[in-house]
Amino acid sequence: MTKELILYTHPQSRGAIVQWMLEEIGQPYSVHVLDYSSTMKAPEYLALNPMGKVPALKHGDVVVTETAAICAYLADAFPQAELAPALEDRGEYYRWLFFAAGCGEPAMFDHAAGWIPETDELQSSLGYGTFEKTFDTLASWLADRSYVAGDRFTAADVYVGSLLRFGMDFNLIPRKPEFEAYVAPFLERPARQQADAKIQALMEEEA
Amino acid sequence: MTKELILYTHPQSRGAIVQWMLEEIGQPYSVHVLDYSSTMKAPEYLALNPMGKVPALKHGDVVVTETAAICAYLADAFPQAELAPALEDRGEYYRWLFFAAGCGEPAMFDHAAGWIPETDELQSSLGYGTFEKTFDTLASWLADRSYVAGDRFTAADVYVGSLLRFGMDFNLIPRKPEFEAYVAPFLERPARQQADAKIQALMEEEA
Repeated sequence: MTKELILYTHPQSRGAIVQWMLEEIGQPYSVHVLDYSSTMKAPEYLALNPMGKVPALKHGDVVVTETAAICAYLADAFPQAELAPALEDRGEYYRWLFFAAGCGEPAMFDHAAGWIPETDELQSSLGYGTFEKTFDTLASWLADRSYVAGDRFTAADVYVGSLLRFGMDFNLIPRKPEFEAYVAPFLERPARQQADAKIQALMEEEA
Repeated sequence: MTKELILYTHPQSRGAIVQWMLEEIGQPYSVHVLDYSSTMKAPEYLALNPMGKVPALKHGDVVVTETAAICAYLADAFPQAELAPALEDRGEYYRWLFFAAGCGEPAMFDHAAGWIPETDELQSSLGYGTFEKTFDTLASWLADRSYVAGDRFTAADVYVGSLLRFGMDFNLIPRKPEFEAYVAPFLERPARQQADAKIQALMEEEA
C-alpha cells in the first residue's frame, strides 16, 4: 500500500525547496499550510516538530524535518525518480549537502546578521571559516560542473541550487558567474516550474 | 580491488569523530596528520579541501569533506558494517544527522561566542531558533531512545553522540540526563576505545 506524503509548510519558507523536491519525485502529496504564530506553535504540530518550524514531511508514520534531510530521504525512498546518486557519487553528494547545510547556510545568515568570525578559533569552531572562503569554495567546485555530484541531477542540486538562488535573489551572497551558470538550467525544469506555480497559488490564498 | 582509505586529520579536531567511525567500519585506513598553520593551508591539501580544514577522507579517487558527510558516506560504502539504517529508518537518520550539523553545531558555537538570535526573523533564518529550543528538542527525542534512528546503532549516533559528548565535556551545552544516558554506552564500544587510543598516541607524537 502506498503511504501518504504530507508536506507541512508555509509558502515563504524553506518548504518551497521540499515542494520542488516533491514535484521532482512525481508522487501525489498533500500540503498543509501552517501559520508562523498560531498553527506552527500549536501542540499538534509541535508533536511532529518540537522546533515549531517548517518544513516537515510525513510519509506514512515517518516524520522527517530539516530541509536537506527531507530531500535526501525522498531521494532514497523513491529510487525510481533517480534523484539519489550511485554509490560511487555518494561521497560528493553528501559532501555538498552537508556543506550547504552546515557551512553555506550559517555563513550566509551570520554574515547578513553582521556576525563575522574574526579569530582562527571561532572560524574553526563554526566550521565555515569565513563567508568569503565558503562561497569561493563552492564556486570553485561548480566552475566545471553542471551538478554537485557525478554527472546528473540529484537531490543535492535541489538543495544547493535553492540555497544559491535564494542567496542571490536576496543579495545575501555574491552573484558569482559559477553560481548563475549552475542554477539557470534548474529554473527550466518542469518540476521546479510546477512547484513555483503551486507556491504562488498558496501565497494568493494567504493574501 | 580494495580502494585505499586515507584520513586527513588533526588529533584535536572533528577528525576524531571520523576516526571513531573508521574504527566502527573495521577496514584498514591510514592517517595523515596535518598542522593547522602549515600543511593544512598548503596547495596539496587545498586541492583536496579548499576550506583548508580537517577532516577530509580520501577513498580511492573520491574526496569527502564535512564530518557528517564522511560518516554517512562510510556507512553506505561499507554496508557490511551495518551503520546505515534500513530504508524505513532513513528518515530519522537523515533528520538527526542534519539537525546536529545544521542546528546543533551552530546553536552551540554561536551561543559560546555570545551570538544570540533575539528576533523571530533571525531565529527563523538561522534555522535553529534558539540554543535552548535546539537542545530541548534533541533531549526530548532521546528521552525514550537508545539510538537516534530505529533500534540500532548507526553512523548518526557516531555524529550526534560525538557532538553531545564534546559539548558536555567543554561545558558548551547543558548536561541533560537524556544526553548523559544516551552517550554513556557509546564510550564502552571497542571501536570508540580503539579510536581514542590512536588519537591519544597521535597527540603524544605531536607533543
